[in-house]
Amino acid sequence: MRAKDIGEFNIIERIISLLSGPKPPYGMGDDCALLDIGEESIAVTTDMVAESTDMPPGMKPWDFGWYTVAINLSDLASKGAKPLAFLSSVAMVPETTIDFVEELYKGMKACCSAYGCYIAGGDTNRGRELMISGTAIGWVRREDFIPRNGAKVGDIIALTGELGLPALGLEILFGRKKIECKRAVAALLTPEPRVREGVYLAEKHLCTASMDTSDGLASSLHQIARASGTGMEIDFDLLPIAPEVKDEEEIDRFALYTGGEFELLLTMSEENFDRAKEKVDIKRIGVVRERKEGIKMSKNEKLIELKDKGYEHF
Amino acid sequence: MRAKDIGEFNIIERIISLLSGPKPPYGMGDDCALLDIGEESIAVTTDMVAESTDMPPGMKPWDFGWYTVAINLSDLASKGAKPLAFLSSVAMVPETTIDFVEELYKGMKACCSAYGCYIAGGDTNRGRELMISGTAIGWVRREDFIPRNGAKVGDIIALTGELGLPALGLEILFGRKKIECKRAVAALLTPEPRVREGVYLAEKHLCTASMDTSDGLASSLHQIARASGTGMEIDFDLLPIAPEVKDEEEIDRFALYTGGEFELLLTMSEENFDRAKEKVDIKRIGVVRERKEGIKMSKNEKLIELKDKGYEHF
Repeated sequence: MRAKDIGEFNIIERIISLLSGPKPPYGMGDDCALLDIGEESIAVTTDMVAESTDMPPGMKPWDFGWYTVAINLSDLASKGAKPLAFLSSVAMVPETTIDFVEELYKGMKACCSAYGCYIAGGDTNRGRELMISGTAIGWVRREDFIPRNGAKVGDIIALTGELGLPALGLEILFGRKKIECKRAVAALLTPEPRVREGVYLAEKHLCTASMDTSDGLASSLHQIARASGTGMEIDFDLLPIAPEVKDEEEIDRFALYTGGEFELLLTMSEENFDRAKEKVDIKRIGVVRERKEGIKMSKNEKLIELKDKGYEHF
Repeated sequence: MRAKDIGEFNIIERIISLLSGPKPPYGMGDDCALLDIGEESIAVTTDMVAESTDMPPGMKPWDFGWYTVAINLSDLASKGAKPLAFLSSVAMVPETTIDFVEELYKGMKACCSAYGCYIAGGDTNRGRELMISGTAIGWVRREDFIPRNGAKVGDIIALTGELGLPALGLEILFGRKKIECKRAVAALLTPEPRVREGVYLAEKHLCTASMDTSDGLASSLHQIARASGTGMEIDFDLLPIAPEVKDEEEIDRFALYTGGEFELLLTMSEENFDRAKEKVDIKRIGVVRERKEGIKMSKNEKLIELKDKGYEHF
């Protein structure tokens, strides 16, 4: 059986089952793992990007550096961890230019600086294509860590930001949409991880579960629901679709089933939602249901099943 | 200018100069960076391996998993840090089999277990070849951290283990040497990081400088000397060459200029050397000289200049 036959999520599940042992750290299978360091604890996460799968036409090396850091910081943000340090390994081909490498690192450094962390080390290697692996380390108290598996039936489902822009940006960069939309392209190439929002929500203990929408909203709903043992129901009319996404048939695909979006998907009580929205830009999009209700979206007075698909590498 | 024109060490120097900023962590440019976490501190390091450059014929997926962890733990060991957790990112090609992936992770887990740490997370991606990036996190008190730049003129140069076996193993696996030598092949495929030795030496404050010999002994001597502002003189007759390495003309190449060896190269006072060797298997191989003396080896009553070359990826 090959990677492409069983898909990325199945591979990850097999790996996790292999690794279970006497010392499973808190957060295994979550967006970050939590490590206790004396009285403190840190969240750690790693993400890898490849030129062939993650660098669309028009993405500059600086952007690619920014992007690599941003997607790792987004994982920290989703757990409420404040960025502390970043490490990167870069595989280059022999033809990679030094200008390219310098721009790449400048982009990484810019993203680190923007979110208050620094590059603490790295490695270089030669490969058959340019690949970057990043590891981010962040601060979070164990009692503040927002898990993926804490959603409760009746909780509000909330989301930061808007939906659909990165998918629109991808269509533009691949020439499948002949419009100009800088905001969409920027959302795709230089995403802004929701660090401030995640850290605030965690410190105030306002959420029961959280993850980022990097695999797409539908997939993230499924993942939180599966981890928490619940169902989910979102309301199409409440989705904060970016105004630039206009084409009716594209809305579902762009807003629900495309990855590369780094908003936070959150669950929380009604009361905490009211408190949270005074400080962070979040919108209610639905409610956590019983597991047997499945993962659904109400649209035009019908309940539609949301498929468990999103961005997988295979 | 391309990566292959200027070489890996030059690329790394450029990157480090780009990254210098208001918050350079302790250990930048060293084998690990040191991060303060409350009262404690942790050492972090990352290393990336690619199938095309780091997986010789005969290396099984289990070995490759072990190897990836071992080389990261070796960086921790060289600073005296005790392994705590490991994260990996694995890029696969669509044809990678699930058996391969499972064996890879079993090898990683085995090496983590052997040295008392655990796998805390990871990522998978698709790439044009199999690549693994590992990040290791270890415990070390700031005052115990053994830097690369602390060698003092007059210190003894010491080394753990033996020299030349991994290079011999490589010749065997590539069919350039038609002999059988399991010890050499094992040294290459499943290296044993000197964790116990490094942690002991650090806790007892016995060393002034340390790094592993992963780039080859000559290169490591140059790197410690450059960082410390000293010269180095080793004595050929004192080098602990493995008995299997017999061919006179190969000894220099195998023992001095080949990477993939994970011994600790150490500098320390005479007195501390005597204390250290009661507990760890180290051998004296030379003495730290003034910078103007250069990096030399005495052999047959002559002083030969050691070239600053070793394993570079470009």
